[in-house]
Amino acid sequence: MDTSTIDLDYFWMAKAIRLAEKGRFTTSPNPRVGCVIVNSDNTCVGEGVHLQAGTPHAEVHALRQAGGKAKNATAYVTLEPCSHFGRTPPCADALITSGVSRVVIAMTDPNPNVSGNGIKKLQDAGIEVVADILSAEAAALNPGFIKRMLTGKPYVRLKQGISLDGKIALANGVSQWITGPQARKDVQQYRAQSCAILTGSGTVRNDDPSLLVRPGEANISDYPLDTYRQPVRVVVSSQTALARHYQLFNDGHPTFIATTKAQADTQNGQFIQVDEVNGKVDLSSLMLQLGAMQFNEVWVEAGPGLAGALLLAGEVDELICYQASKLLGDSAQGMVSLPQFSDLNQAITLSLAEVRQIGNDIKLSYHVR
Amino acid sequence: MDTSTIDLDYFWMAKAIRLAEKGRFTTSPNPRVGCVIVNSDNTCVGEGVHLQAGTPHAEVHALRQAGGKAKNATAYVTLEPCSHFGRTPPCADALITSGVSRVVIAMTDPNPNVSGNGIKKLQDAGIEVVADILSAEAAALNPGFIKRMLTGKPYVRLKQGISLDGKIALANGVSQWITGPQARKDVQQYRAQSCAILTGSGTVRNDDPSLLVRPGEANISDYPLDTYRQPVRVVVSSQTALARHYQLFNDGHPTFIATTKAQADTQNGQFIQVDEVNGKVDLSSLMLQLGAMQFNEVWVEAGPGLAGALLLAGEVDELICYQASKLLGDSAQGMVSLPQFSDLNQAITLSLAEVRQIGNDIKLSYHVR
Repeated sequence: MDTSTIDLDYFWMAKAIRLAEKGRFTTSPNPRVGCVIVNSDNTCVGEGVHLQAGTPHAEVHALRQAGGKAKNATAYVTLEPCSHFGRTPPCADALITSGVSRVVIAMTDPNPNVSGNGIKKLQDAGIEVVADILSAEAAALNPGFIKRMLTGKPYVRLKQGISLDGKIALANGVSQWITGPQARKDVQQYRAQSCAILTGSGTVRNDDPSLLVRPGEANISDYPLDTYRQPVRVVVSSQTALARHYQLFNDGHPTFIATTKAQADTQNGQFIQVDEVNGKVDLSSLMLQLGAMQFNEVWVEAGPGLAGALLLAGEVDELICYQASKLLGDSAQGMVSLPQFSDLNQAITLSLAEVRQIGNDIKLSYHVR
Repeated sequence: MDTSTIDLDYFWMAKAIRLAEKGRFTTSPNPRVGCVIVNSDNTCVGEGVHLQAGTPHAEVHALRQAGGKAKNATAYVTLEPCSHFGRTPPCADALITSGVSRVVIAMTDPNPNVSGNGIKKLQDAGIEVVADILSAEAAALNPGFIKRMLTGKPYVRLKQGISLDGKIALANGVSQWITGPQARKDVQQYRAQSCAILTGSGTVRNDDPSLLVRPGEANISDYPLDTYRQPVRVVVSSQTALARHYQLFNDGHPTFIATTKAQADTQNGQFIQVDEVNGKVDLSSLMLQLGAMQFNEVWVEAGPGLAGALLLAGEVDELICYQASKLLGDSAQGMVSLPQFSDLNQAITLSLAEVRQIGNDIKLSYHVR
């Protein structure tokens, strides 16, 4: 393959990735996938994006648009085409039938048990296959789907709204609003793209939050469906029963209580029954259960206790802090409860991924090592 | 004046400001000043920068270099030329004698009692004077000198090295090192440009710091003197006498203890005797005394008690935080002690001036409102 063909492959794959991003808020539990069909004149003859589980995959949309022009064309797909019958027929078969002569794939299927099957099916049909073009960018489309395929657990983002001195509320509990409206709008986008929002019983008791996407605030341009897809709420409540008068039990959207089996047996409601560790919900077991519920991305809005417990359990992939330009003083409530460390090497070390100003606040994104 | 002349004025004044920056570490108690002489062919015939009190001012250096070429030239000066005899003769006189026909000034003298006198002297001699060219940039050269001329107090920068959750040390006092080597190097530059470093007796007792510039770490390129100018150390010690075995009392560089008159009377050492408020050093009086000692810029490295007291007293102009990508947990020591607030409106509100990554840390600079 000469250099110019490789350049074109990157060009068209970048377009397929931009298409895939349109599914950010709606594809779960499926991955976000985009597809472009390009003929031998280097003209795009078909574009497709997967929008919702149960509806056609990106390849099918793009091939439908291309029709007969797919013959001898190149298909660019951000994820290895499926080779099995799910809720829709295999996309590898559709590509073979269409007559494309070449398929460029950004990344292989993350599930090691099926990875390569789609490629093999295409190759067996005489189609040239090129893989790993913009694979990191393609992987960034689907951190949750990929992690779930590899580990059975969702990708977990922990969000905290803090002051410069790391406080989430005054001593009296007042926390509305430490950060500004632009930060709160940014939060809505994460809620909207997440399958589940995890919180603790303390936050429910203190703040009685809805944790739903507020469409007016989210203000997502080009939302592809008629109504917002609301995430499922999950409240971790290890010990004491939670009264049922709180908003999130009464707004018509599903809320689960994650609790120990013993607790669940004594109450009414929708429960996720989780193994117990020291009388508390085992957070690793909880994540496996959330993965089994096909939740790709989980967004955590919780107090210092659950935040600290998740960090210590290694169940946080990304920490996102909205940090206000304010000082609340040392009597205010801290962002994370951790054991008393005697050595700085015991501190939780983060890897800074992004810092940017957002309104009068700063948004800090960290990968948790 | 036509547009092209104005453009040239900005061009040459920018050069004069870059020259003035060479005095960043050495001019105090004098201001940092740069000067450029440009002839009618738009050629620079003289450059000058003031480096140290008692040595020639920027205008004199530039005029000496220009010699006879100063005749009918334009002089660009970052600060209104002095009109009075100090340790050197008035620069306004030197400009008049040189035969320059035009003087462009970035900003007038900040002292309202003498502001305009230099300009008037030049105008009375028939020289055309243009003022307020890049005045904000020129003012940024000398925040300390300007504030001292206007208020009698130095410009105060409070530095904190913190974790993401706003902690400066573990519960057991361990704090070396929360932030990384690049951040510590950045601190050295601030120490080097400051006239005094302020700390509290608690920090001296806990850490026994030298607070001197460590030349190897500071690594200032193009330092204009042979040896580093070390700042004066000032330790706020309101009540209990401080033992004299600590480093900063025994390294041959001056250290003052800022304390109440009653305390000073009972001890030996170099004291700044300050009015008392509730048995503690009155920080506003202290700042007036530091101003009277001709300190332009004061750099504070202190614990949460003094940091909070300075902020509450309104004696901090700028807060500079080096924030590490670490979490120490809520048992660790917080960065600032403040009263217990009951309303978020009571929080100390900052204005974000700059955020940037520095090594694995973030440097956050705030103006204190």
